[in-house]
Amino acid sequence: MDAAQEAKRREAFRKAAVNTLERRLFYKPSFQIYGGVAGLYDYGPPGFEVEANVLALWRQHFVRKEKMFEVRCPCLTPEVVLRASGHVEKFTDLMVKDEKTGNCFRADHLLKDYCKEKLEKDTNLSSEKTAELNHVLAMLDDFSAEELGAKIKGYGITAPDTKNVLSDPYPFNLMFQTSIGPSGVSPGYMRPETAQGIFVNFKDLYYYNGKKLPFAAAQIGQAFRNEISPRQGLLRVREFTLAEIEHFVDPEDKSHPKFSQVSELEFLMFPREDQVSARQARRIQIGEAVSQGIVNNETLGYFIGRVYLFLTQLGIDKDRLRFRQHLANEMAHYAADCWDAEIECSYGWIECVGIADRSAFDLRAHNDKSGVALVAHEKFAKPREVEKLIITPDKKELGLAFRDKQKMVVEALKAMGEKEAMEMKSALETEGEVEFQVCTLNKVVTIKKNMVSISKEKKKEHQRVFTPSVIEPSFGIGRIIYCLYEHSFYTRANKDGDEQLNVFRFPPLVAPIKCTVCPLVQNGQFEEIAEKIAESLDASGISNILDMTGTSIGKRYARTDELGVPFAITVDKPTSVTVRERDSRQQIRVNIDKVATLVKSVTDGERTWADILSEYQIHSSWSTVVRFWDWLTSLPYNFIT
Amino acid sequence: MDAAQEAKRREAFRKAAVNTLERRLFYKPSFQIYGGVAGLYDYGPPGFEVEANVLALWRQHFVRKEKMFEVRCPCLTPEVVLRASGHVEKFTDLMVKDEKTGNCFRADHLLKDYCKEKLEKDTNLSSEKTAELNHVLAMLDDFSAEELGAKIKGYGITAPDTKNVLSDPYPFNLMFQTSIGPSGVSPGYMRPETAQGIFVNFKDLYYYNGKKLPFAAAQIGQAFRNEISPRQGLLRVREFTLAEIEHFVDPEDKSHPKFSQVSELEFLMFPREDQVSARQARRIQIGEAVSQGIVNNETLGYFIGRVYLFLTQLGIDKDRLRFRQHLANEMAHYAADCWDAEIECSYGWIECVGIADRSAFDLRAHNDKSGVALVAHEKFAKPREVEKLIITPDKKELGLAFRDKQKMVVEALKAMGEKEAMEMKSALETEGEVEFQVCTLNKVVTIKKNMVSISKEKKKEHQRVFTPSVIEPSFGIGRIIYCLYEHSFYTRANKDGDEQLNVFRFPPLVAPIKCTVCPLVQNGQFEEIAEKIAESLDASGISNILDMTGTSIGKRYARTDELGVPFAITVDKPTSVTVRERDSRQQIRVNIDKVATLVKSVTDGERTWADILSEYQIHSSWSTVVRFWDWLTSLPYNFIT
Repeated sequence: MDAAQEAKRREAFRKAAVNTLERRLFYKPSFQIYGGVAGLYDYGPPGFEVEANVLALWRQHFVRKEKMFEVRCPCLTPEVVLRASGHVEKFTDLMVKDEKTGNCFRADHLLKDYCKEKLEKDTNLSSEKTAELNHVLAMLDDFSAEELGAKIKGYGITAPDTKNVLSDPYPFNLMFQTSIGPSGVSPGYMRPETAQGIFVNFKDLYYYNGKKLPFAAAQIGQAFRNEISPRQGLLRVREFTLAEIEHFVDPEDKSHPKFSQVSELEFLMFPREDQVSARQARRIQIGEAVSQGIVNNETLGYFIGRVYLFLTQLGIDKDRLRFRQHLANEMAHYAADCWDAEIECSYGWIECVGIADRSAFDLRAHNDKSGVALVAHEKFAKPREVEKLIITPDKKELGLAFRDKQKMVVEALKAMGEKEAMEMKSALETEGEVEFQVCTLNKVVTIKKNMVSISKEKKKEHQRVFTPSVIEPSFGIGRIIYCLYEHSFYTRANKDGDEQLNVFRFPPLVAPIKCTVCPLVQNGQFEEIAEKIAESLDASGISNILDMTGTSIGKRYARTDELGVPFAITVDKPTSVTVRERDSRQQIRVNIDKVATLVKSVTDGERTWADILSEYQIHSSWSTVVRFWDWLTSLPYNFIT
Repeated sequence: MDAAQEAKRREAFRKAAVNTLERRLFYKPSFQIYGGVAGLYDYGPPGFEVEANVLALWRQHFVRKEKMFEVRCPCLTPEVVLRASGHVEKFTDLMVKDEKTGNCFRADHLLKDYCKEKLEKDTNLSSEKTAELNHVLAMLDDFSAEELGAKIKGYGITAPDTKNVLSDPYPFNLMFQTSIGPSGVSPGYMRPETAQGIFVNFKDLYYYNGKKLPFAAAQIGQAFRNEISPRQGLLRVREFTLAEIEHFVDPEDKSHPKFSQVSELEFLMFPREDQVSARQARRIQIGEAVSQGIVNNETLGYFIGRVYLFLTQLGIDKDRLRFRQHLANEMAHYAADCWDAEIECSYGWIECVGIADRSAFDLRAHNDKSGVALVAHEKFAKPREVEKLIITPDKKELGLAFRDKQKMVVEALKAMGEKEAMEMKSALETEGEVEFQVCTLNKVVTIKKNMVSISKEKKKEHQRVFTPSVIEPSFGIGRIIYCLYEHSFYTRANKDGDEQLNVFRFPPLVAPIKCTVCPLVQNGQFEEIAEKIAESLDASGISNILDMTGTSIGKRYARTDELGVPFAITVDKPTSVTVRERDSRQQIRVNIDKVATLVKSVTDGERTWADILSEYQIHSSWSTVVRFWDWLTSLPYNFIT
């Protein structure tokens, strides 16, 4: 299949899946009776249940098993917090405005769309032009406002709808702003992530954990981003569910006691080096990746492994899941390492989980802004003599030399590591001055002898006081769910072969409704039995649909296959019923008083359908034509724990 | 105890409870390292777990058992939706401003505080003055801005902090406003309730239910109110969890098929009549209340009964729970009936759940504003001949007579019921004109014969098209949880009798952590066993604390009693352990391989501690001095289902 055909196939697949999802109310644009609002979606009954199941597994897999502290902090956040975190200043996208209508567009999206269209549709492109456009696409995230503006002007890109001239790109802050309290003088924002609520509580949580490291806090909640141009359905929205973990760890010991439990897992990884040298993602054992230094440390590696288990247990296809390392230019300057779990869907590879070692950045930022010490202590059994590096910048001299840049030079000097500082010391002593790179100024300055004193002092210390590192796995739940929908969706011919029916092959754990109960025919006795079975399922918390319509049983199955309901109980005898499995369409006969327990055991994950088959004989049905092999290979139940 | 003593006792109790709650991180003011923000709270680890347990029970009790459709809609809401619902215009509190500092206060709170203080502290009050102040307190919710302003001026009330003069009261909208999208021209609000998300989806949900009534949709989520002066901890906050049910029902048939399941429940009710005639709340059977017409209809009564069961199962003291009917002046004009579940805590009786029959108001409002028909259909088996009332106001004549009020007169005429319309018709025929009360104008106008034509026509109809009524139980989860904390909190002397220890007597279902596991002494073998037990509890999803500190066992028990942990497993032998129950402090001895299952069964609610005692012998312990009777009466497990 060539690229164009493949693109068409993807489009058609997506259309079929999304049509089914919206028609069956998995999700739909919000406020549709009023024309809708871009980037806002409602989760209807089945979509809500899928999300609830995904979150329940997340809690069990991460919070319970790792004894994390789950918390809930407000969405409303005062400005001071988001100023400290850098969001007020830097949480922006570059925007251009239609000079006449005032319509706004994301500058990089326009440039991306232009390049892609050119590459796809312009058959007369020179090879230089092709290379240039590809280079632009690769560099898109790195362009400054000026560079983006120059490209847009250079290519003559105009507003997509009106063809009007566009403004120069300028940064637009993606946070929703509001005002807290009646006076109107306290600006606040809807949080763009849940993490900050945990960072500002570090001190209390550290005490709650008996002043011991490591520990992790977790939070599930809504986050808000005022996207300039929401697109791709659930993938780029203005309000979404995030599930975030902040694992606080001693920066000097990032080993993980349970790393051996995941170290032999092997899956697609895409290290930085392989991306830069245009290689493909490849299967690597996570243990290998850590020991070879591809992944920075064990704790980061442990979480990568746990994320892999979580996603595949949900029903994400492991061959369409990869862990991609951030390139140097993608990563925040403070981050030690960062990997994204990317899932392939019809829109391409989508970043669904970010797993970052953010070092001490967040706690330091809030420590500095609030003046409250967000540190951990390691008490020594007996006092230790330590040599301490003392860097004392002379603020007056630096002020005279650098004026308004003084503060940044001071900070850069203070931030020097031991090796760098001692080299500077000896250079200053021998040569009187030295060149010094100030990252925050993005330039090299000259430091003279009178501007800084550097020394080492011996001290007795009773404890080590340090800012913990934070390792943060952050899950975009809506994106995971959308990819899961695509990975679970398939169509198959109906009995007569004249129609394609839609099916979602959700694992029972994820399925929005676990079971359909239908009397075979509209008959008082069968209906009463069906009601009783539904009641006992309700009582054990097994969601079910009681379908009493007179529609043919085949149609009723098709209707719930489309919701991904894994089991159907058909009441066709006074003492026993037929239980049908969705994907294999195999049927077994079960006594009425045993059927609720049976369905519960397999939806709870205590048993698999295969376990059940080994106990019961397959019952006759039109679906037995499906070969056993087909069934086995299509089996979605993946109970790796 | 006189009132002042009682007030003191309540204060002291509250202080002890709240200190414990904040110290153990059940909840605490948000963003405290930055000085906090009034009305915003974080739920720390145990508080989060309590909320999760309350919501899980809510889902099982309401959503699962009643087969409701749970949905999730955005918090961000465009203005048009909240204009239709009336929130943009009417969701306000009256505010006064310190004329000099600009500080804002709720006008009714200032007046209330003034009256209360006068009544409590001014010993020279005349009986007339006392009566007047009590009358003001009773009328507080009914005062207009002008009346409130006059009282504030009249009593010389000034700003509490500065004693400056206050502005006249003016309405302040309680919604947090923001702007959706980059252009800045689309105002939006953070939803003040979750209900609107369901109403705007009525049509889809009705189709999802196979176009049948009744059905209910439910939503749990954050709601936001920009309170002028947040107070009373979790009771009046700016962001909170709401759990709302919208039960759609045929207005002509509000019976409920399962009413008999609750009709014999008897609990404290406080009907409108009893309030007006200054009687006390009394115990009434809900079946009686419905049949006597105290409660408007069976469906409303059914939900009142279900709410009673829910709250008492959580651990709310049934003697401090009452259902209070709204007075005529409290109720929205469209509501058919409304009851609040009020729970008594140290702040008095607190409205925690509202259970309202909102008639067709919400669906009509969105139907009219959006132009999308939000109606239900009842197909007739065979066409029916019906007599239809036709009211045709003559807009031109009405316009000449009433000018800008024409629209309201037209609407009032159209809204007449059959009886009223037919009376008007005959009055117009005999007398040529008639007096007519227009509620929305709050005055009586004269309608002349040429202004309206009224007739009855016979028509064949194949179906009935109608706007469903909505019965809405709406739960303030944070308020319920705060009251639950107070109802669960007690203190008891330690072993030596020289210290009071704090305990929360949460039912296992609600307890934030189900079990503590501690090795009796720091010993490799015991520690290993403890770890294994904790792991198997983790695996079955039973939250637990593994306490390996060397602290005395008594102190370790006290520490988790304060978190309301119902069971402690102490590893004190190589093959068996001691299991201790929190409130009775009874202990039993259980084999190591059986203990996880035992704890799971009692925390899941399959068995009670009493069931377990009947199987195991009480083990020796210092706590056996607690008499069996004490234990029985203090037993918090209330497994009414």
